Amino acid sequence: MNQDARSLNLVTAQCAVFDDPFPLQGGAVLPGFQLMYETYGTLNANRSNAVLICHALSGNHHVAGRYAEDDKYPGWWDTMVGPGKPIDTNRFFVVGLNNLGGCHGSTGPVSINPATGKPWGAVFPVVVVNDWVQSQAKLADRLGIDKWAAVIGGSLGGMQALRWTVTFPHRVRHCINIASAPKLTAQNIAFNDVARNAILTDPEFYGGDYYQHGVVPRRGLRLARMLGHITYLSNEGMGGKFGRQLKSDGYQFSYETEFEIESYLRYQGDRFADVFDANTYLLMTKALDYFDPARHFGGSLSAALAATDAKFLVISFTTDWRFSPERSRETVKALLDAKKSVSYAEIESVHGHDAFLMTDEPYMQLMHAYLNRVADEVHA
Amino acid sequence: MNQDARSLNLVTAQCAVFDDPFPLQGGAVLPGFQLMYETYGTLNANRSNAVLICHALSGNHHVAGRYAEDDKYPGWWDTMVGPGKPIDTNRFFVVGLNNLGGCHGSTGPVSINPATGKPWGAVFPVVVVNDWVQSQAKLADRLGIDKWAAVIGGSLGGMQALRWTVTFPHRVRHCINIASAPKLTAQNIAFNDVARNAILTDPEFYGGDYYQHGVVPRRGLRLARMLGHITYLSNEGMGGKFGRQLKSDGYQFSYETEFEIESYLRYQGDRFADVFDANTYLLMTKALDYFDPARHFGGSLSAALAATDAKFLVISFTTDWRFSPERSRETVKALLDAKKSVSYAEIESVHGHDAFLMTDEPYMQLMHAYLNRVADEVHA
Repeated sequence: MNQDARSLNLVTAQCAVFDDPFPLQGGAVLPGFQLMYETYGTLNANRSNAVLICHALSGNHHVAGRYAEDDKYPGWWDTMVGPGKPIDTNRFFVVGLNNLGGCHGSTGPVSINPATGKPWGAVFPVVVVNDWVQSQAKLADRLGIDKWAAVIGGSLGGMQALRWTVTFPHRVRHCINIASAPKLTAQNIAFNDVARNAILTDPEFYGGDYYQHGVVPRRGLRLARMLGHITYLSNEGMGGKFGRQLKSDGYQFSYETEFEIESYLRYQGDRFADVFDANTYLLMTKALDYFDPARHFGGSLSAALAATDAKFLVISFTTDWRFSPERSRETVKALLDAKKSVSYAEIESVHGHDAFLMTDEPYMQLMHAYLNRVADEVHA
Repeated sequence: MNQDARSLNLVTAQCAVFDDPFPLQGGAVLPGFQLMYETYGTLNANRSNAVLICHALSGNHHVAGRYAEDDKYPGWWDTMVGPGKPIDTNRFFVVGLNNLGGCHGSTGPVSINPATGKPWGAVFPVVVVNDWVQSQAKLADRLGIDKWAAVIGGSLGGMQALRWTVTFPHRVRHCINIASAPKLTAQNIAFNDVARNAILTDPEFYGGDYYQHGVVPRRGLRLARMLGHITYLSNEGMGGKFGRQLKSDGYQFSYETEFEIESYLRYQGDRFADVFDANTYLLMTKALDYFDPARHFGGSLSAALAATDAKFLVISFTTDWRFSPERSRETVKALLDAKKSVSYAEIESVHGHDAFLMTDEPYMQLMHAYLNRVADEVHA
């Protein structure tokens, strides 16, 4: 099968509007909200083949395919989602959405606050992973999906997948939790805090109301992304790709971009600062920090997971140091303690945390095989 | 022996002025310079018991003791240096200095440029580790020290100690290289680059000439230090000390300081930004990035070290991920390949990179035993 035959036809984003007040875990109540989403494939007659893709920090609803033939890039997980791909759109009805608080069309800090007629900005409430799960459940209801064949996500997306099984124990058949963790460590929070401080102390942040000033806290957002990128890549991978390579011959004895790795990071930072919203970045990192499903179960993750019907696939990558294999094994142990069905794979990869977006062959094969079995189950 | 008996009497900083033009590796020539330094103990008759302490990124010449009885803190390595301590001032004549480019009195960006009558600021040239070694050799000449009993340093200080043995192969009897590396990795450079960018893009940096504007790039310096701190501590140590502890009961759903680790990092950042110079920070990180003594020896560190007479002690710490034990083993391997005398210890510690400043018992005992032997040698 050639690459073209495995790509989706042109895709279209849709918008689901929810008019009812939506209470958030932090105590605030949104007067309603909208979610941008995309679907690929066809929902079967008994509505059993739906798969939810949860995105990570900077993702959105555009998971796969292109909007137009000449789009430079397809959706962010096009390698994984499409006809004949591991998440096979010939067999599954796949749903991707932009999370509440996002900056790609779902209600978030850049949206207009109906109470003021201005962007929400700093006033947009902090949301937690469970708020996302609750809002995703409303989307599932709207689409007529009572139970997902699978909820799938990497990193922060994996946290949503895990949380689904706690909040809605009977609405998830399979949970695929990739390169994730049951809660952040102090070091994880520390990195997030430096990123947040870069944004919060940018003079053009204006307490979150930069929209009113016609500027964006670009410097802060750029630094946050540069720092993030270091934690997404492995020491080994970065060494292999960039090492100590210089952009020109010899040391320049200045503070200009000099090593290739500097050039890469600054480019990534600039590109991100062009397209992403700083308030959304703050909100996403805070959702990461707060995630801790064991918290209301006396610190016991297995107690939190006790009621779920889901089967689990947990995947980690050897060189991921943001959420190391050890963190995934915590999840696996809690599931085993709770006597749940769980498969675990630790994939050899040089790609660090980013490996969940890459196409290391054992990873792709595992996803393909597992999801084939899920498809057989739901179509049986 | 009680703690008081092991402390130095009051110490005094001194200043050595060098009037001759001083050419730097980057091509610039300083019209002369001064170095702040301190000495503890007594130089013996044959001038064989002198020990040089090289400081790391944020260190200075105030290595041990107090300037006044009521000083809140002693010098930065007072646990290691003093009467009866591992670097025993009853037996050694210990020299500490503030490196060229520093911000504690040695000639650096905050000094007055004689050509303009204004602070050097952005015009102060980038220096490399070998420039420091050359300037330290001038100080040794001034003090009448032909050969150091030992040159000792941790982290960036260890790089200076190593470089001494390459540049002046016959002037170092023992090199003690602690928590260091023979060159930075791409990941090391990446962290430095984010820190530099935080400073360079601070609107109050003014291209390095902030002194003229009566401000300092405080936000950038603060972020740089917060980030640095994450890399100085181990994941384990940070987890043990802070974990997910909150400053108050329950989540606050805001972007204020909330987790204890955030409070710690912000405090460290604020304190540092109060006292350190941003241009010096840039300069120090660049010296780290550039360090690579093998570079002019076809990439062979053992070739770089071939000519030295020194004996080596290399020390690493198990949880140091900034310069992991693996990096120290590279140095050890090169020394063994060059048929040099080298001892190596990998010390179990939870303190990460900062362990070189801590007092883990096996580390202190090792330093004490090794330096006792050195003292016996030079006093024989």
